[in-house]
Amino acid sequence: MKISGQSIIGLRSAVNSGPSFRAANPRTGERLPPDFFSAGGGEVNLAAGLAHEAFAIYGQLSGREKGKFLRTIAAKIEGAVDELVERAEQETALPKPRLQSETGRTSGQLRLFAQLVEEGSWVTARIDRADAVSKPPKPDLRSMLHALGPVVVFGASNFPLAFSVAGGDTASALAAGNPVIVKAHPAHPGTSELVGQLVRESVQECGLPEGVFSLLLDSGTAVGVALVKHPVVKAVGFTGSHNAGRALMDAAAARREPIPVFAEMGSTNPVFILPGALRENGDNISTGMYKSFTLGAGQFCTKPGIVFLPENEDAATFVDKLKKSVLESGQFNMLTSGIRSAYQSATTRRKTETGVKLLAARPSSANDQELGVDAALFEADTESFLRNPELAAEVFGPATLIVRHSTRAQVLELARSLGGHLTATIHGTDADLHEFRDLVAILKDKVGRLVFNGFPTGVEVSHAMVHGGPYPATSDGRSTSVGSEAIFRFCRPVCYQGFPEATLPDELRDGNPLGIWRMVDGEMTRESRTT
Amino acid sequence: MKISGQSIIGLRSAVNSGPSFRAANPRTGERLPPDFFSAGGGEVNLAAGLAHEAFAIYGQLSGREKGKFLRTIAAKIEGAVDELVERAEQETALPKPRLQSETGRTSGQLRLFAQLVEEGSWVTARIDRADAVSKPPKPDLRSMLHALGPVVVFGASNFPLAFSVAGGDTASALAAGNPVIVKAHPAHPGTSELVGQLVRESVQECGLPEGVFSLLLDSGTAVGVALVKHPVVKAVGFTGSHNAGRALMDAAAARREPIPVFAEMGSTNPVFILPGALRENGDNISTGMYKSFTLGAGQFCTKPGIVFLPENEDAATFVDKLKKSVLESGQFNMLTSGIRSAYQSATTRRKTETGVKLLAARPSSANDQELGVDAALFEADTESFLRNPELAAEVFGPATLIVRHSTRAQVLELARSLGGHLTATIHGTDADLHEFRDLVAILKDKVGRLVFNGFPTGVEVSHAMVHGGPYPATSDGRSTSVGSEAIFRFCRPVCYQGFPEATLPDELRDGNPLGIWRMVDGEMTRESRTT
Repeated sequence: MKISGQSIIGLRSAVNSGPSFRAANPRTGERLPPDFFSAGGGEVNLAAGLAHEAFAIYGQLSGREKGKFLRTIAAKIEGAVDELVERAEQETALPKPRLQSETGRTSGQLRLFAQLVEEGSWVTARIDRADAVSKPPKPDLRSMLHALGPVVVFGASNFPLAFSVAGGDTASALAAGNPVIVKAHPAHPGTSELVGQLVRESVQECGLPEGVFSLLLDSGTAVGVALVKHPVVKAVGFTGSHNAGRALMDAAAARREPIPVFAEMGSTNPVFILPGALRENGDNISTGMYKSFTLGAGQFCTKPGIVFLPENEDAATFVDKLKKSVLESGQFNMLTSGIRSAYQSATTRRKTETGVKLLAARPSSANDQELGVDAALFEADTESFLRNPELAAEVFGPATLIVRHSTRAQVLELARSLGGHLTATIHGTDADLHEFRDLVAILKDKVGRLVFNGFPTGVEVSHAMVHGGPYPATSDGRSTSVGSEAIFRFCRPVCYQGFPEATLPDELRDGNPLGIWRMVDGEMTRESRTT
Repeated sequence: MKISGQSIIGLRSAVNSGPSFRAANPRTGERLPPDFFSAGGGEVNLAAGLAHEAFAIYGQLSGREKGKFLRTIAAKIEGAVDELVERAEQETALPKPRLQSETGRTSGQLRLFAQLVEEGSWVTARIDRADAVSKPPKPDLRSMLHALGPVVVFGASNFPLAFSVAGGDTASALAAGNPVIVKAHPAHPGTSELVGQLVRESVQECGLPEGVFSLLLDSGTAVGVALVKHPVVKAVGFTGSHNAGRALMDAAAARREPIPVFAEMGSTNPVFILPGALRENGDNISTGMYKSFTLGAGQFCTKPGIVFLPENEDAATFVDKLKKSVLESGQFNMLTSGIRSAYQSATTRRKTETGVKLLAARPSSANDQELGVDAALFEADTESFLRNPELAAEVFGPATLIVRHSTRAQVLELARSLGGHLTATIHGTDADLHEFRDLVAILKDKVGRLVFNGFPTGVEVSHAMVHGGPYPATSDGRSTSVGSEAIFRFCRPVCYQGFPEATLPDELRDGNPLGIWRMVDGEMTRESRTT
């Protein structure tokens, strides 16, 4: 495939002349060819207009047809895996095996949603039969989920494949029946365009209206903001920083017609290591913690950024081992120079916070790479932590903060002090868990996922996964961005009252021709309505 | 029961000294005793603080316990029906039979939600079993819905019982496990306080923490705004005007932690009467239309406020009959002087709009009542309607607008021009529906409920009901305020990864002790997990 440097607007070859930019190799700083051209207002309007038109057809497609489309994209991504990984590696410096597995995750997600819509029960069909005898008579009511309309998806810097052009938000939005306009992340425009070309080919092969998919490039923020403000756009999916996410939330809320923004904005993912677990398994947990907070150079939204530990000998041993791991680590490459400098200012600032100690940081060396940074391990006492909300904030990169507590009451106070996070983790024995029963109850109101005796990094794509959590982890904790439940963000229920059988969608017909699960008069069944 | 004129804050007797106000009898203008006292900032903080405290316990209750609470409230409301109807009639001038049936609707709603949480499957439990062989190994993941936290509910002027203190939003929020703080509507404070006392008694009888329920009075808007801005409040339910709803949406979006506002803000509920239906059944439809747009003095959010008709003889006959009904009608009592004057300015302004004719309005007479108004029937041509968005706006009260079209293309153009509404209605024969197939497809993207050969007023409380619709009908079209699906607005999914059986909520345990429907490895089942 050839990288043109141009936005993809339906089946059209854009010829943009906006500001040009290039991707950079984070390892070398080298500016990678070709030039990419930012889209302008005309391209935004064209993509939005085509998406709006396409919705009238795409929003009505059967699950089988949408499934075919998603499977076509998945197959094309797998067919191009070498080329995608090659370019992604240049643009992100992420290790090739990680990028290969991310490619698998991307096609896997597309297939999960294909399966979901082919099976069909996700539409949450409900049928309440008419009752002419009741006073007043009850009408025949049948409801199901329909798509919202054009969805804007922002590519994420830290997942060039699985949370970008054909990533999670795109897969769930397309599965629900929404056209998608992706705003590519400027850090990996080449990877974005390559995937975009594969989606465009899939649109063509499946005979879909061209506006089902567009991909817009921009070196700045103008295109993204214009998309979020465009009247035909009905929802937004975003993964990125708090400031950018909040700006999009505010722009969407200030529209004449406010629209939902699903922004995943980061999280510190607190970890509680309870006394029994520390005693019995401290060594393994320390190894796991080090791996988890440095995985992907700490650039995962589920990176554990706070570790709550008791004040005892076991904890001291645990920390010594963690310090050793940090001192022995190599340099980590950050994804972009912006992320690198943000990490460096954050760690520099943290050193100066009252009550905070830098426990370990690898000394920088001569063979530093262009976007290299060093892992850092900080420590604070309970009082300083509770007094300073800055210490609970996310530091994006390979750093974590140990917070020491000395009583059970302090543990609960620390837990209660937390804001919204994607995850919280508890390491404990059964006895620990019994003793700290109320800790689970407190934490469940703070997060989307509670992890026991594991690590928060590694987000399984499945039915029960919740990758969400209360603000400020996300814009709306009532949703997940990973797993099949993500489809519900991009649809809404519509009720048909008194409609003749022949005019109803298949999902709501008497005979249940699709054989889906439905709630009929309050009971779940996959039988036809009349049996 | 005695009406004290004071807010109810948990189990405490408030002694507010804020501005006092009285309810007015809309029929006579008489100011009804006693004086009611507006709450202040101290009461807002106290109610919010108690709700926050109560959540830690109430949010954990079993479905059986919450069901008992809801059923206790329902029984108390039924036990006090005469007293409630008596006071509500004085405060609203709504006919007693209507208020009696609204009381039944209120207790019926509470019982529907009781049944839902007692049965338990609403929590949408999902279990993905661990797979140690898979690479990387899959963890055990189990998710279910949990409550959000304190919810603020605004009483509606037009449903003093079913959408007020113990109405739909309160019932669904309590069912999901959220404490509720109600801001009473100042037009029916006595009815509100009486119902509030019954809820408070139920809290006591069920041994629940007092903060589960509070009721705050206010003659103005300060208390409502302070509640929406209070940091412990996690969601808002509102039924009322567009301006008030939008103000709450904006306040919630501007919070440090934005929260969801479910505002139902009105709708014009367009009706399309197709040529065959008009020919075969015009007479009955005309009778039904008149009843529907004047029901409750046109003060229903589902009142049909636009009727699209062809330019033909059948339509002329239909309109003549409708005119006759309007001319013969008596006066209608509006709920408040504010609503009355809004109706009068809206109808006065409408007369002056370009291309609009007043077809019929009953001449005012000597025996006019204090808050009386006259029904009004307007007409406009397609071109004027399309040019002037004012004509598609809601006029709250007994008025409707006929819009004449002359081609099939015009019908579709009119449909496409519509914004978000709660409902759209089509009257048609099978042949009409076949000919106007695309009309259904267009309208389904505009509304929450499509009605065929019926009338939009009369909103069944059931599983398949959708009382919602795209903005500006509501703040968020992905939700319903009527029917059992309303419970989903007030909760969010939480995932438990790797937790020992004994520490999991009953809903997620291996043996499925509650016998609920769950998705296990992607399959719906109500068996225990291990069979």
